[in-house]
Amino acid sequence: MIDLSKLPRSVSLKRDADDAAMLVYIDERFLPGELRMERTQDWRQVVDAIKTLAVRGAPAIGVAGAAAMALWASNVGCARARQFGCAEVIPRFMDEFEEVAHEVAHARPTAVNLSWAVDRMCSLAKQAAGEGLDVSVVADELFREVRRMEKEDEAANRAMGAHGAELLKPGSRVLTHCNAGSLATVFYGTALGVVYAAAEQGKIERVYADETRPVGQGARLTVWELSKAGVPVTLICDNMAASVMAAGKVDAVIVGADRIARNGDAANKIGTYGVAVLAKRHGIPVYVVAPSSTIDFSLATGAEIPIEQRSAREVLPQPIEGVDVFNPAFDVTPADLITKIVTERGSFDPSELAAAYGC
Amino acid sequence: MIDLSKLPRSVSLKRDADDAAMLVYIDERFLPGELRMERTQDWRQVVDAIKTLAVRGAPAIGVAGAAAMALWASNVGCARARQFGCAEVIPRFMDEFEEVAHEVAHARPTAVNLSWAVDRMCSLAKQAAGEGLDVSVVADELFREVRRMEKEDEAANRAMGAHGAELLKPGSRVLTHCNAGSLATVFYGTALGVVYAAAEQGKIERVYADETRPVGQGARLTVWELSKAGVPVTLICDNMAASVMAAGKVDAVIVGADRIARNGDAANKIGTYGVAVLAKRHGIPVYVVAPSSTIDFSLATGAEIPIEQRSAREVLPQPIEGVDVFNPAFDVTPADLITKIVTERGSFDPSELAAAYGC
Repeated sequence: MIDLSKLPRSVSLKRDADDAAMLVYIDERFLPGELRMERTQDWRQVVDAIKTLAVRGAPAIGVAGAAAMALWASNVGCARARQFGCAEVIPRFMDEFEEVAHEVAHARPTAVNLSWAVDRMCSLAKQAAGEGLDVSVVADELFREVRRMEKEDEAANRAMGAHGAELLKPGSRVLTHCNAGSLATVFYGTALGVVYAAAEQGKIERVYADETRPVGQGARLTVWELSKAGVPVTLICDNMAASVMAAGKVDAVIVGADRIARNGDAANKIGTYGVAVLAKRHGIPVYVVAPSSTIDFSLATGAEIPIEQRSAREVLPQPIEGVDVFNPAFDVTPADLITKIVTERGSFDPSELAAAYGC
Repeated sequence: MIDLSKLPRSVSLKRDADDAAMLVYIDERFLPGELRMERTQDWRQVVDAIKTLAVRGAPAIGVAGAAAMALWASNVGCARARQFGCAEVIPRFMDEFEEVAHEVAHARPTAVNLSWAVDRMCSLAKQAAGEGLDVSVVADELFREVRRMEKEDEAANRAMGAHGAELLKPGSRVLTHCNAGSLATVFYGTALGVVYAAAEQGKIERVYADETRPVGQGARLTVWELSKAGVPVTLICDNMAASVMAAGKVDAVIVGADRIARNGDAANKIGTYGVAVLAKRHGIPVYVVAPSSTIDFSLATGAEIPIEQRSAREVLPQPIEGVDVFNPAFDVTPADLITKIVTERGSFDPSELAAAYGC
């Protein structure tokens, strides 16, 4: 039986007893051993959580980034701006807010959801400030905007789940890479949202989870949340996906995305491209599941998506003299290897995506 | 500059000061942190070393298995057989020798080199015993046979190196999976033997080494021996091979094999099949390098090759409730994905292999 009640929310903006803004989030670096909930009023701690992968997953870091801005506005920005003369309060507030926005937007480069969320917060702040509202009112607006994003995220995930589940047959065995689950979003997940929705319809026989080196989002997060929810799951090393496919054990590959270009090319966790090539060889459909906020219509193709390079230590904790390390965090799956892109609006052929969105 | 003088021999049968037979081998589980040389007169320790991957690599476990039999014959078998009446000495010796042979042959299932070496030792023992030789003379013959295997292994590796190097152009960037190097053989290596031979000709720009989960033969062994030898090497996670290929950074994939079927299908470390699929997509040649002892002409296709399943703990050291693990140690690359099979006799199209060997 599928039961999502044991899955916590990954990020949740609240007010504490003193009415201060506070972000509650899971520090995922301690999973699966420990479910550590962090509470912070400090926007810098949230930026740090994004950089260190304590909070990760494109939709989750979008909301967390927006929350960092709301924390700054409520807990820092208002007080600092009021140190100046009345006429300067709003301009000072906005100047510093934009600096914060810049820092949040650059915490990680590949997921477009981060800059999407930052842009949304900046637009709101500019509008509110332009109306001459008090900075505390602006801060409250920003707080409420994050809460709206949280609700929209879950609603989008559930809509993607419903659209994606339609693509699956009863008895489906699904292979996924990385974690595009509840732990990568506010709640419910994108790729795993499809799994949850299909599982509730009795369509899921088993999920094969790639461990997803070097950070192990599959081995630490995906298997944890699927087993918590009661979905049968088998962990494999990344290099075993080909064997599992060759044995006829996979009916669909379902993954998330960190940025999708106008032509349907999709950046996702390193290794996704390889999985898609293997799926093609074995005649297995590949479904990329992501909210509309992941689509970057300003980019013609995936070649323009910036790929984050991370520390060699993630791959090789003890350096060896004379040994170099290459550690890209993402790769780009070309649209021709993607069967459908599933957003909250429906399922689309990659080539139809731009037209469907009127872009 | 390439310098192999810092690479130790992986397995070497010797006599100690008291003239007892002794195997000197590297316990590779401690690399790259520690180069631990073990010395043992105990055949069971050698079988255990094969099972635990202290000694691994198809050619190395072939020689180590034969050495285990020689250790038994010299250090155990002669003395035990002499407890019986003269007429019984040879039959008793041979009976127990066959039990030892059975245990050695079944230490690991996939690499055919192990049963090849066992068969060779059994044939020799039967012939020597049939000639009515004293068991100590039989034991000495077995000892010398292992020493011959060691010499043949290195000679075969150097021949493969020469044949394989002819396939590479100057400036080659090679991707390899697992360790088919000096540490997988007595000395020099198969796939990495080709790299060493080509490097000595100035043809190697760089080697990309897959880390090779879950045991990490690439991350622990391949990068260690290549850096010791002075070959530029970059470690990548298994799931990054597709990205490196897509970036145009790989000119050839070179791997070893644990068993090759008559039609050219080749079993090798889990993940090799996936790498070969990726190479095909990117138009990169795949060279499988292995001695003739790796070819199993009794098997029509790779579907008949037994695939070893190993412990879940290798993949997931701390079990998670409700999470299954699949851990096959090998996969089979179909002949249509293999550009050339390189043995000590030359380079062959997979489809020509059987004819070239008159089988």
